[in-house]
Amino acid sequence: MSYHFEPTELYRMPTHFGPATGPRRGPDGRRFACKDTPKTTAVTVSFLSRAEQLSALLPPGFSLGVEPVVTVTASYMKEIEWLAGRGYNMLGVTIPAVFQSKSGPIVGSFLLVLWENLTEPIITGREELGFSKVFADLPEPVTHHDELHCAANWDGFRFLELSVGQLQPLSAAQIAAKVSAVQSSGTLHYKYLPRTGAPGRADVQHAVLTPLAVPNRVVTSMARGQGTLQFHRARWEDMPTQYMIVNTLHALDVLEYRGATVAHTVGGKDLSDQQILLTPDGPG
Amino acid sequence: MSYHFEPTELYRMPTHFGPATGPRRGPDGRRFACKDTPKTTAVTVSFLSRAEQLSALLPPGFSLGVEPVVTVTASYMKEIEWLAGRGYNMLGVTIPAVFQSKSGPIVGSFLLVLWENLTEPIITGREELGFSKVFADLPEPVTHHDELHCAANWDGFRFLELSVGQLQPLSAAQIAAKVSAVQSSGTLHYKYLPRTGAPGRADVQHAVLTPLAVPNRVVTSMARGQGTLQFHRARWEDMPTQYMIVNTLHALDVLEYRGATVAHTVGGKDLSDQQILLTPDGPG
Amino acid sequence: MSYHFEPTELYRMPTHFGPATGPRRGPDGRRFACKDTPKTTAVTVSFLSRAEQLSALLPPGFSLGVEPVVTVTASYMKEIEWLAGRGYNMLGVTIPAVFQSKSGPIVGSFLLVLWENLTEPIITGREELGFSKVFADLPEPVTHHDELHCAANWDGFRFLELSVGQLQPLSAAQIAAKVSAVQSSGTLHYKYLPRTGAPGRADVQHAVLTPLAVPNRVVTSMARGQGTLQFHRARWEDMPTQYMIVNTLHALDVLEYRGATVAHTVGGKDLSDQQILLTPDGPG
Amino acid sequence: MSYHFEPTELYRMPTHFGPATGPRRGPDGRRFACKDTPKTTAVTVSFLSRAEQLSALLPPGFSLGVEPVVTVTASYMKEIEWLAGRGYNMLGVTIPAVFQSKSGPIVGSFLLVLWENLTEPIITGREELGFSKVFADLPEPVTHHDELHCAANWDGFRFLELSVGQLQPLSAAQIAAKVSAVQSSGTLHYKYLPRTGAPGRADVQHAVLTPLAVPNRVVTSMARGQGTLQFHRARWEDMPTQYMIVNTLHALDVLEYRGATVAHTVGGKDLSDQQILLTPDGPG
Repeated sequence: MSYHFEPTELYRMPTHFGPATGPRRGPDGRRFACKDTPKTTAVTVSFLSRAEQLSALLPPGFSLGVEPVVTVTASYMKEIEWLAGRGYNMLGVTIPAVFQSKSGPIVGSFLLVLWENLTEPIITGREELGFSKVFADLPEPVTHHDELHCAANWDGFRFLELSVGQLQPLSAAQIAAKVSAVQSSGTLHYKYLPRTGAPGRADVQHAVLTPLAVPNRVVTSMARGQGTLQFHRARWEDMPTQYMIVNTLHALDVLEYRGATVAHTVGGKDLSDQQILLTPDGPG
Repeated sequence: MSYHFEPTELYRMPTHFGPATGPRRGPDGRRFACKDTPKTTAVTVSFLSRAEQLSALLPPGFSLGVEPVVTVTASYMKEIEWLAGRGYNMLGVTIPAVFQSKSGPIVGSFLLVLWENLTEPIITGREELGFSKVFADLPEPVTHHDELHCAANWDGFRFLELSVGQLQPLSAAQIAAKVSAVQSSGTLHYKYLPRTGAPGRADVQHAVLTPLAVPNRVVTSMARGQGTLQFHRARWEDMPTQYMIVNTLHALDVLEYRGATVAHTVGGKDLSDQQILLTPDGPG
Repeated sequence: MSYHFEPTELYRMPTHFGPATGPRRGPDGRRFACKDTPKTTAVTVSFLSRAEQLSALLPPGFSLGVEPVVTVTASYMKEIEWLAGRGYNMLGVTIPAVFQSKSGPIVGSFLLVLWENLTEPIITGREELGFSKVFADLPEPVTHHDELHCAANWDGFRFLELSVGQLQPLSAAQIAAKVSAVQSSGTLHYKYLPRTGAPGRADVQHAVLTPLAVPNRVVTSMARGQGTLQFHRARWEDMPTQYMIVNTLHALDVLEYRGATVAHTVGGKDLSDQQILLTPDGPG
Repeated sequence: MSYHFEPTELYRMPTHFGPATGPRRGPDGRRFACKDTPKTTAVTVSFLSRAEQLSALLPPGFSLGVEPVVTVTASYMKEIEWLAGRGYNMLGVTIPAVFQSKSGPIVGSFLLVLWENLTEPIITGREELGFSKVFADLPEPVTHHDELHCAANWDGFRFLELSVGQLQPLSAAQIAAKVSAVQSSGTLHYKYLPRTGAPGRADVQHAVLTPLAVPNRVVTSMARGQGTLQFHRARWEDMPTQYMIVNTLHALDVLEYRGATVAHTVGGKDLSDQQILLTPDGPG
């Protein structure tokens, strides 16, 4: 009478209508190659902050990486295959971190938070991957007088403004050198899903890694310049579920800006290589 | 160095900024009484369908209730406390079901899917409660020539139209009789959260119950009338993650409409009474 | 071959598809009674400012009324007949003024600006009536802890916040007294439409009056309380066509608040009684 | 006391806050060169229809051009200077027409209607230029499997779908040949602004021309392919001010598709060369 679950298929609530389609499963179970698409513009601004401020944001098992540098990345994606060609935008904040895994230290960028302007990838990213995704309005960047301006709002409250200018294009050799210089295993996350009816208890709680390699991604151009950013202090009334996120980021000291980049890339991956990290004591 | 989790506090990704605020936890850990708010307008249309079509939508452990009646409820909420007075809208589809629990059969309304037009309650509802919530644009209902029209869209594709008319107000006694006639333990759900990196495996998979009682809810008025609805067939390109939901509902035979209601209510609950249902063999 | 214009029908660009439908003309040329609809919630906050600041905002032929009081009104309308039951919201700023017409002084409220969150009534209001309407995002008001909060944004820039509290309901007699105490001929406007290709020249430039009477409007409830408001300074980059409006209102001295009201009304009019005011020298 | 109008400055309602900023006037009265910006993607689909259907859409003084071909153009603009770097989108429908002016026939493309997804250029375009602009939601085009899909909605009702595929890039020489082959004086319009309080009477009613030349526009790439489109029939309830526009376009016979193009251009003009056309008997 009732349906049953196919043992190797991907499901997501509601499970009642069959296996789920999404980034890692298309209609009829096909996968998405992420070759030639999506087309992404990524804007980054970095700044040096205080080690003790950043360490306090790391979950158990993690320690701060070499230098207390915060990187804010605003990404604008088009032609996403699993959305039948639609796009969406992202705003992520990362800091360098090391995770002490069962098999030794894993060095990477720890994703503190990732805002997205579409609910679908927020759900799939949280549940299937362990990304700390939440919602924001992320309008297209505005280019004016050779400066690029990005903003993020929640229900009309502008919580971030970011500007980049004095951009100088990098040569193909410079881009290649920059890409290959990255010393990282990938992006680190902390997946947490609460147990129903039991505040303080989790059903899922472990570290996760997005491996660095994205073989199908091609950087078609990159420029380097100067950038600044400002997180605006919010009241609970302004952002009832996110004010503490924004205020913590607002409170980070900006000791020195560390440059900005604007990159255009083509291609990506479906993130099916996302992996749970084991601690010396068991699942992370 | 790194932060630690408070043992009795509620967390949600990102966990790095302290305990989470949301429906069941306000700033400073206070709770929301949900008395006098929210203010809700709820519109329902029911129809008789085929038992075999509905049974096929029930997960393991569930069987169809007495009569194969589908109820579609569009709710428009204002003055929600945990959103600092904002509102949002919902569109739910339920069928009668019985869950065979460890302690005997539990009769209720099974929630097949619940669309909401705000990401925040979608995240909290899925992860903390096990509601099968997904996103849709749910514009305010339109009242015209004594008919009330509700619609639901996803990225410009209108997948549901629902109309209610010939409304006759119920007396206070009739409302009380109708409320007390409900024979149900509450709303039944099936919580499912996939394991990262392991398609086909779940970290969380069990039945859940929202108990019926909402002591703080007062029905301020209710009318009964006739209603019709239409789910529109979607292509994968129209709704890449929801086409199968909409098409399954579109395919349900409408043997007979079973009336419509429009109710105005005040008050609610924070759903902290949500509970996991145990099967005879262990967690549901 | 080409079409011709019906001599008594209402047209609006594009004129090529026949007479226009809108607030003053429905399908088949029928009119809208505006009885029982729309349903409106109107929130006002008033403050005493400086006469010289307000006089400087009046066009030729107008002088300031008795007291330099600015009234900001946020209106939230539902069930608008000409929009087939949809609603939209408005935010208006008025000051008392007197127009020296051919037939003597006309006392009224001068509408400095009216923001609306829907393009259709902005077009019809500007072209057919001479209302100074421009666009803004006007989210539903938020009620929280017995206070009502209204906001207005343009492309994510919040240019107005307005709050009302300590509300005391008025009795039916008090409402009637308040309504009948209004000493005004109605709302005064200044219609201006530029001539194509001739900067500085106008094709239409005259005063306009919306007569006070709205026979079909019923005030169903009204409360009086305290209110405050804040216009936020904008850069040209924030609001490229409206920064001077917002900054002028921001610069008005608030010498004293003069109370706030929240009213619920039913019914309206189609504004077909809008009339051009003649100056002693000809059209206003 | 009251303000006065500067004799050579551009004004727009509300006139009370000084000269207006917009496409043809920036802060401090400066003009916009429209060089290097905006960046535009323009998608066109053309089809052969019936001469008698198209002639019936032409206002007095106009006759149909050589061939009854309808061209629908969806344009997506970024980095618009007068909007401080923001963008907006347009959807226009043109047919070939000839206007009998005082100085002889003027051959051009007659703009039947232009939808835009931003109120500001709709107001300036209607009032300052005489463009038949109205509002629609115009989402970014979706590229999927080498096809490009454009859509237009009004309040959730999808009234147009347009697809282009089999695109073959044109060489620089082919682009230059195509651009120089255009035999037209520009875009023809019919400006109409009603008189307040006098249904059937207009204060402004004349033909207008946008001259063809756009010296600062550079076509950076162009491709030619096949395209189809579909206007969907609307009820008054679906689009209360536009249903007759959409239904008239829906009713046009599509005898044969005449190809499609996708072009990327840089640069534009501020349209300050817009000119009133005189009829043999006086203003158009």
